[in-house]
Parts: sequence; structure tokens; C-alpha cells
Amino acid sequence: MTRIAVCAPSTPITPEDAEAVRALAAAEFPGVDLMIHDQCFAVEGHFAGPDDMRRDALVECANDPSVDAVWFARGGYGACRIAEAALARFDHAAGQKTYLGYSDAGYLLGGLYRERIGKPVHGPMLADIRREGGVDAVRRALNFMMVAEEGLEPSLAGERHPVVAFNLMTLAMLGGTRLMPGLANHVVMVEEVSEHLYAVDRLFFHATAHLGGIAGLRLGRVSDVPENDRPFGADALEIAQYWCNRHAIPFVGEADIGHDAANKLVPFG
Amino acid sequence: MTRIAVCAPSTPITPEDAEAVRALAAAEFPGVDLMIHDQCFAVEGHFAGPDDMRRDALVECANDPSVDAVWFARGGYGACRIAEAALARFDHAAGQKTYLGYSDAGYLLGGLYRERIGKPVHGPMLADIRREGGVDAVRRALNFMMVAEEGLEPSLAGERHPVVAFNLMTLAMLGGTRLMPGLANHVVMVEEVSEHLYAVDRLFFHATAHLGGIAGLRLGRVSDVPENDRPFGADALEIAQYWCNRHAIPFVGEADIGHDAANKLVPFG
Repeated sequence: MTRIAVCAPSTPITPEDAEAVRALAAAEFPGVDLMIHDQCFAVEGHFAGPDDMRRDALVECANDPSVDAVWFARGGYGACRIAEAALARFDHAAGQKTYLGYSDAGYLLGGLYRERIGKPVHGPMLADIRREGGVDAVRRALNFMMVAEEGLEPSLAGERHPVVAFNLMTLAMLGGTRLMPGLANHVVMVEEVSEHLYAVDRLFFHATAHLGGIAGLRLGRVSDVPENDRPFGADALEIAQYWCNRHAIPFVGEADIGHDAANKLVPFG
Repeated sequence: MTRIAVCAPSTPITPEDAEAVRALAAAEFPGVDLMIHDQCFAVEGHFAGPDDMRRDALVECANDPSVDAVWFARGGYGACRIAEAALARFDHAAGQKTYLGYSDAGYLLGGLYRERIGKPVHGPMLADIRREGGVDAVRRALNFMMVAEEGLEPSLAGERHPVVAFNLMTLAMLGGTRLMPGLANHVVMVEEVSEHLYAVDRLFFHATAHLGGIAGLRLGRVSDVPENDRPFGADALEIAQYWCNRHAIPFVGEADIGHDAANKLVPFG
């Protein structure tokens, strides 16, 4: 039996989304015991409950020795407010687990990886059930948490370097903070959603200044780019290559990650 | 005679805006000789001409010994792409000037201040002529470049610490880059425009992590906040105070700066 604890360090999910994933797990994954923390449904302003509540739920899931994996319910924004305080309270049991999420959950993946706690993995979250094709994303996540070797981002098969994956905004905001892991010699994958291309360029200006010494950068999907009042003049691939070139970072290709149902799994390390 | 050279390191202005400011200067500031560089009207994608052209125009204005002040035409995005290369070519004449702008021009103000070149000043730009009340903003800028002691942000009168002012996004992106000045013992003023409050919170998470050792933070106006699908749960003042408190930064009040016609002048230092 694989016991998966779901909590929401950022924004809340709906009971309907939780029920849909519970039903999918019950029907297709008899080896999974899915424990969805009540905190996932709490609402305080932007967040899934106040900082204290989100932090305590995360600590509870991480420190439960009967739990194999902590699955982040949804991104949005908010994990950076509680990450340091939560990680400071993680105990030995927390080090034995997989932690799965992406987008805003990247603050936690980064902090976990920096502190060498458990196995941080970039991949689909419970709330992805809402997306077109989201059932496949949730299947991929559940299957990975059971058997751990399927649904991987394809470049990993031939990769000799350790890898990490982040939302570009999240990685940019991590730079210089106490949650930022050392990424020397890593291949770093980034993806972005709902940002203008000028903002993507700006984020690359910042993020690549913090990525000296990495082995290479891969670009995931940059999706739902809003229409601007004029064309930017370069696409996301050209932007990534430009900034990699400025900082002598090898650009090693594209990555099969993104804010979409096809988002593949990237175990850190 | 005060000779002011205008260039556009970020995005272009229109000939109509240039003409309106030229007419205002001719009518009210007979002591000003306004030289608006043709590069201000160039367009390449998002930018006021390609990187090389924007860099060269800035270097030309900065290194002209007959020029007293370099006035940035407009923000938007783009100065961070050319700032390092331009500053590397600044010569002795560049060190004798005032540099005036805000928003995206903050990358240049930051780099100039770091390199101790000339007098960087946060304040209105030529393109502010378009704003409601923008004529007053342009008057304030022209008057400051002539006499240098009017239109100052009011807290400066009683301030014992050196000060700087930045757009919050710009400051967040500067952190950890080669353009970021040391700000120990400074009072740092920030303002923001057109960002969701969750994004403002995220920017404070990042920026305050880079502001250890500052003397205090002042909050300018946070304007044109887009409507989100739910309330954030705190206003901009509470957000600033929260993050200052987390990083033991004294929050010392509000600042009379912002993306608006009332934007007052903040000479760095």
C-alpha cells in the first residue's frame, strides 16, 4: 500500500476536485491510500487557510511515518511564506518521503532539495484534474508515487547530470533566498505560464544571473502568453538561448514540462 | 543653460509626446536646451530599437561633455539588456551628470549607483506627459534638472540615511545581478503598478531577502492593482510591513513616489 498525504501550502482546492481524484484512485489504483487533509479546503483570502494552518498541515503530513508521499494539492501562490518555518520542523520521518508538485510548490521543492530532505519531484498536482486531459496527469502522478519509474521527462533517460525543474517565476524568486538550492553542475528545466514575453525575458535576465555553474538549461513549455500591445520580437526559445549565451550557460534543448496535462515528472537529483 | 539629453533604453516614445515636451520646455524653461535623440522613436519589437542602438545612444548621451543631464524617455522593459555594456563604455564626462528616470530605468539607476557614476535620480520621465496631470510631472523633472532642489520626495528633508528608490519589480530583478548596488544603511523606497497583490507579496518575499542591513523601507504607491478572482486578504501596506518584519527591516512609512503624475524626485545617496 502506498499512502499519499495531500496538503495545500498555497491555495485551496474544491471538494469536487478532491472527490474526482479520490474516485479515480479508488477505481484504478487499489494500491493507493489517498489521505486528503481538510486544510486543502480552508480559505483565507488568497490562501488555503492562514500561514499557521498551512504550515502545520504540511508538517503533519511530512512527519507522519505511515505516509510515503506528500502530494501538493495546487499551486497559485503562498508556499514561500511558510516553507522555511515548515522545513525547520521536519523530523526524521520527513526525510523518507517523496514530495510532488510544481508551480508555486517549487519553493518547497527548492527548500527540500537544499536541505537534502526526502525526494523532491516536479510533476502534476491534484488540482490538475480540472485541466483538459487532466485525468491523465493525475494518473501519471499517482502511478509515479506507486512505482516511481514511469511518466518521467524523456531527456532524463540520457542525462548524466543531476536535474531539477522549476516554474521560471518561482526559480527567479528563489534566487538569493534561504530556499535556493545550490545548482552547480545541474541541468535546470524551466517552464512558464500566463506571462508576457517581455516578462519572460526579464525573468531570464534575473534567473540566469543566479545560475552560474549549472551544466545546462532546458526550456519547457511557455504557455498562455497574453497578447501584448505589440509583438516582443523573439519567441521563448530565442529568449532562453539569448540569456544562456550571455551567461555562458549551455542551452541543451527543450523539456516536456509545463502548466498542462502533459507535464512529465522530474525527480530532483 | 542646462543641456538635457533624452534617450530611450527601454521602449519608444511618439513624436507627438516629444513635441509636447519640447513645446513645454520652450515656453516655460528658457534655460533648458532639450536634445531628444532620434533613437527614442526607433522601434524593434518591444524595444526602442535593437540592443546595440539603444546602448549606443545611451553611451553617446552620457559621454557628451556638453550635456548636464541624461533623461530617460520612458520605461516599459529593456534597460536591463544593455545596462552592463553601456556602463562599461561610460567615460569621465558620464560621471559629471544627473540621470533621471524610474520604472524600468531603475536597472540603470541601480547600475550607475553601484559604479558610483554621476547622480542617479528616481523621478518623472518624458513619457509621463501622457498621464493625467502629466504636464506637472514633466515640469517637476525639468525644474529639478535645472535647479536640483525642488520637487523632492518630502521625507528626504528629515532623512539622515542615504536613500534610493525603485519600482519593486525592478528592485526584485536587480537582486543578485551585476547591476545591484550595495544598499546597507540606506532607506529604500519602492513603488509598484499593475501587479496583483499576490505578486506584490511574492516580490516582497524576494526583494526583502536581498535587503539585509538596510536602514529602513518606505512604501510608495501600489497602483492599478488588477482585480483578482478573490481578495488577497491584506493590502499593500500590510504586505510591506509583514515582509519587513520577517527580515528585521525597519518599516519607516510611506513615500510620495509612484507610477503617476505626483511621483516626486529621489536623488540617490
